[in-house]
Amino acid sequence: MLQEINAAPAPNLPFSRAEYAARIAKTRRAMEAAGVDAIIVSDPSNMAWLTGYDGWSFYVHQAVVLGMDGDPVWFGRGQDANGARRTVFMGEGDIIGYADHYVQSAERHPMQVLAAEIEKRWGGSGRIGVEMDNYWFSAAAFATLQRELPDARFADTTGLVNWQRAVKSEAELGFMRNAARLVERMHQVIFDKAEPGYRKCDLVADIYAAGLRYDEAFGFGGDYPALVPLLPSGVDASAPHLTWNDDPLQAGEGTFFEIAGVYRRYHCPLSRTVFLGKPTQTFLDAEKAVLEGMEAGLEMARAGNRCEDIANAFFAVLSRYGIVKDNRTGYSIGLSYPPDWGERTMSLRAGDRTELEPNMTFHFMTGLWMEDWGFEITESIVIGETGPELLANVPRKLFVKD
Amino acid sequence: MLQEINAAPAPNLPFSRAEYAARIAKTRRAMEAAGVDAIIVSDPSNMAWLTGYDGWSFYVHQAVVLGMDGDPVWFGRGQDANGARRTVFMGEGDIIGYADHYVQSAERHPMQVLAAEIEKRWGGSGRIGVEMDNYWFSAAAFATLQRELPDARFADTTGLVNWQRAVKSEAELGFMRNAARLVERMHQVIFDKAEPGYRKCDLVADIYAAGLRYDEAFGFGGDYPALVPLLPSGVDASAPHLTWNDDPLQAGEGTFFEIAGVYRRYHCPLSRTVFLGKPTQTFLDAEKAVLEGMEAGLEMARAGNRCEDIANAFFAVLSRYGIVKDNRTGYSIGLSYPPDWGERTMSLRAGDRTELEPNMTFHFMTGLWMEDWGFEITESIVIGETGPELLANVPRKLFVKD
Repeated sequence: MLQEINAAPAPNLPFSRAEYAARIAKTRRAMEAAGVDAIIVSDPSNMAWLTGYDGWSFYVHQAVVLGMDGDPVWFGRGQDANGARRTVFMGEGDIIGYADHYVQSAERHPMQVLAAEIEKRWGGSGRIGVEMDNYWFSAAAFATLQRELPDARFADTTGLVNWQRAVKSEAELGFMRNAARLVERMHQVIFDKAEPGYRKCDLVADIYAAGLRYDEAFGFGGDYPALVPLLPSGVDASAPHLTWNDDPLQAGEGTFFEIAGVYRRYHCPLSRTVFLGKPTQTFLDAEKAVLEGMEAGLEMARAGNRCEDIANAFFAVLSRYGIVKDNRTGYSIGLSYPPDWGERTMSLRAGDRTELEPNMTFHFMTGLWMEDWGFEITESIVIGETGPELLANVPRKLFVKD
Repeated sequence: MLQEINAAPAPNLPFSRAEYAARIAKTRRAMEAAGVDAIIVSDPSNMAWLTGYDGWSFYVHQAVVLGMDGDPVWFGRGQDANGARRTVFMGEGDIIGYADHYVQSAERHPMQVLAAEIEKRWGGSGRIGVEMDNYWFSAAAFATLQRELPDARFADTTGLVNWQRAVKSEAELGFMRNAARLVERMHQVIFDKAEPGYRKCDLVADIYAAGLRYDEAFGFGGDYPALVPLLPSGVDASAPHLTWNDDPLQAGEGTFFEIAGVYRRYHCPLSRTVFLGKPTQTFLDAEKAVLEGMEAGLEMARAGNRCEDIANAFFAVLSRYGIVKDNRTGYSIGLSYPPDWGERTMSLRAGDRTELEPNMTFHFMTGLWMEDWGFEITESIVIGETGPELLANVPRKLFVKD
């Protein structure tokens, strides 16, 4: 009976059962290398990638537990078990909900329930990997597991699953190309609508609409981004992560738009900068330096090179123009949940010597946040044997509306 | 010189300096009672409430540190220090940025920098409160602090600041009433637009527009919600936290809309359910039970009663109708960042004996997620001496479009 349920595809599963099986096999090889018997996966992106689980339930404790055989186990709040039933490929026996009085309680912790489940299934003395540096694995969650499983040995497997996600399947690339169509539409709307006096909150409404609405020509609509649109102007653009207010756009100011198209949780981030009026020399100089630097970086974005090769090429041009950027210039992208559309593995920065492989995907994040201005022109790319595929086709330049 | 900078109001500060001073004084009384010399505040809502800090930067490690005197200290990624300068009331000396090579590094951790800063300012042997069970304080963050400050004694102060936020100031209530105007507009749009064949992703675009656009009559536009809109239909509505897809709405199905209006990070959540076509008896029965239960619960929502009094009154009616709801029926609300618009303190459930005080604010979350359907009609309320203020004015009923 259980097997029958197992064999039925989940009603909303985005990828084939074979693709999930391949992901799990790949992850188990990494678990073997790390010397762990099971991993507790708290990152919602990792949970989704392994099982299909999709829901805005990460504000309570939840996890996927993967051992060395059998299906993964979904663990979460009782009321979210129905969400698991609608989205994961596993059967009823591998969906474990905990009672609601564990939610935000000062007396009990959901990890007590998970510890008991682990003891039952795998015994209490195994070597268990946990994502020590993940938003969704709190210090209290770890302390509870340590207390409840005193004979277990815990290993830090932060990023273990994230790293398996680096090289995308053809199906995943298809999702990211869909996301690219959406981000192209979003930038078109920005350019059409942005003008002095137009309010930022209104422009954000336009951006959401362009990112979400169903398009008959595409055959799909959009999903929510892991970050809200960022569109700071003038001095506020010196800060990379301020969100909008309801002020009107001003003539004589630059505004960068850091946004992503999203298709079924797969992201294509892309930033452009709009200047209303005649751009200052600062902006024209930044445009020249960044575009030339991007050409140099993209030149290096091919299989066999390393992450830092892209960064070093970009920064070499920037420093020739006297521009100092003291932060990384990109990161791996793909499937993501808030708060971050990066995969938190590879960074495009000096010292990251990870070898580039075909079908790795990056946001080449060439943003500048200076003392009293900011500027972003970026690309999302797929690494190829001889060079990158640019996911989106948006003119690579400073947009000027004079 | 520093003092001069300190005296200037931050360009974007949402509340008066006096209000921040009162919040800090109140928090320090709670710190004294908890026996801590300083607290490391990782929760972005707590950081904003204490200092004004506002930005989508919580995907990297950051904190506000509050000692027993002086201004709070903002700590975060170097590139986000500009965001702090634009939003907090503190001066340059209390804004500490860490170098970018600490970001998502396997070799170093931002908490090493914070530990050094704490040692410099407060010595290494104090009693320090940390938010052990918060999304933004990972197991690795805690392990790093313990390693770097071996003589410090750490105390769990999860929720310490959250509890100070429970009773709202008049200025905060003003923000929440603004948010209520937005959520009213959002439900109006839903009722106007929902019809068989209309796609969910398009309806979400409409919902965002209604939540965000500037309104001349209001004099303001909206901010982003801490949760994306939830609008599952039919069987999917048995799960409380599934997000949308691009499917068309179907005749003969119920869809609940769990959304919030947001003004400068202050939330007014409000849910309604729309049935397309003639509602089934199940939905009519649910409407009757929930509305009667809400009346009973609202009757108890006044100063001097306890959280559980509201819940018990509601659940008593529900069980008279034979409906079993096995999760809490509400929570404290106000200022919030993703992933949760709850304050994570009080819950409306049996056993929560917190005494209600005037100007506490709750989402009376009376949602039902049953085996193959779901139903939500909720209210956001302000506790008064003799009864609650309903923040929003949206007809309290099942919306039927036949």
